[in-house]
Amino acid sequence: MKMMKAILASTSTLHGEGYLEYLIPHLTDLYGNDKEVLFIPYARPGGISHDEYTLKAKEAFKKANLSLRGIHEFEDAVKAIQNAEGIFTGGGNTFLLVSELYRNGLIDILKNVILNGTPYLGTSAGTNIGGLTMGTTNDMPIVLPKSFKTLGLIPFNINPHYLDPDVNSTHKGETRETRIKEFHHFNSQPVVGLREGSWLELNKNEVILRGTPSARIFKCNKDAYEAATGTNLTNLN
Amino acid sequence: MKMMKAILASTSTLHGEGYLEYLIPHLTDLYGNDKEVLFIPYARPGGISHDEYTLKAKEAFKKANLSLRGIHEFEDAVKAIQNAEGIFTGGGNTFLLVSELYRNGLIDILKNVILNGTPYLGTSAGTNIGGLTMGTTNDMPIVLPKSFKTLGLIPFNINPHYLDPDVNSTHKGETRETRIKEFHHFNSQPVVGLREGSWLELNKNEVILRGTPSARIFKCNKDAYEAATGTNLTNLN
Repeated sequence: MKMMKAILASTSTLHGEGYLEYLIPHLTDLYGNDKEVLFIPYARPGGISHDEYTLKAKEAFKKANLSLRGIHEFEDAVKAIQNAEGIFTGGGNTFLLVSELYRNGLIDILKNVILNGTPYLGTSAGTNIGGLTMGTTNDMPIVLPKSFKTLGLIPFNINPHYLDPDVNSTHKGETRETRIKEFHHFNSQPVVGLREGSWLELNKNEVILRGTPSARIFKCNKDAYEAATGTNLTNLN
Repeated sequence: MKMMKAILASTSTLHGEGYLEYLIPHLTDLYGNDKEVLFIPYARPGGISHDEYTLKAKEAFKKANLSLRGIHEFEDAVKAIQNAEGIFTGGGNTFLLVSELYRNGLIDILKNVILNGTPYLGTSAGTNIGGLTMGTTNDMPIVLPKSFKTLGLIPFNINPHYLDPDVNSTHKGETRETRIKEFHHFNSQPVVGLREGSWLELNKNEVILRGTPSARIFKCNKDAYEAATGTNLTNLN
């Protein structure tokens, strides 16, 4: 029996809103009251420092009466994860995040504490790593991680910031849908295209789609389809 | 003294045109007359087979009176590259292309024949590998290559299908420019954002920007700038 309690959100920020604004009302339910959450800033969006990124997350968490400390502030990162009352992994570059998690020997320990009930929030890259692999990230390969294998909290992959094909575009680069189809020529797990505003709620064994809009589900050798808010994705595989 | 003769094009296809249509007038100058060109279909756009992809390229090359054979049709891929009168690497997924080149032990041999004068055409993924690394691809990491190091025909990286930020977008995923900036926090080489319709012409030692529109040049710790058609990029580093 899994004991998970997690939110895997497509994006940290919605258009016109502040950082994490739409997620703040859900943080008390996730983490409880007066907790100190461990922040994993490794993905470093825009290349900002771990300190700068942690400060930004700290300010948002304050609005939910939660304190927050960056994992880089601890001498022993493994112990920091083991002792954490809650964990939040922010967005940025997934290749960098996964590289750093492997380099610091944290992938397995992070997976274990989440499966055993440490509340977890991921946004963007932090959500991507909740899937089986990071093979459906949108990010640039700015560093080479040891492996693309990630936490596997759910039996499928996630494509955060999912974007529908722009039917008016004259650009010849691949659409997101084409890229996911290419993924399925070499990988069999389903991919959930999580649009900005949606998230997966992991509660014990269950995985439910929350927020708006709907998500796009891609299965190997099947036509893609829409899943409405509230859809149970626990057995999507 | 390098003997290169190559075209590295942002895209195979322009909006509203046929496959390779805008490049066909330049193929005689690149390869000469009545030659048989070796096609490297490893990037498999949309997951199509090597045979299907080769057929598509063959039909386009026929318009320039050039014949074409897929590398997968040869028993010995190394010899096929060594003996080729010309080479064309098509687009698709760069992770897959680079994986296959390493798996078949072809990276060094491909680099050597091009530096020694075998005419080369690359489009999209086939262009990306002309740079120092594939670290500025737009593609999804559907497979893990042994290394991101590529041919290094030029002293910088290329971002094919370069797209300017859409100022009207409400989407919160990173822009191309943001992604390249993240790349520059961990890598020092310049990046040429090659818009669709532009290409690099490599002639002996020289690298010249051709086609339209202009290209966007990103240097580490510097402001990005535009380079017009005809710009000499030989010493961009």
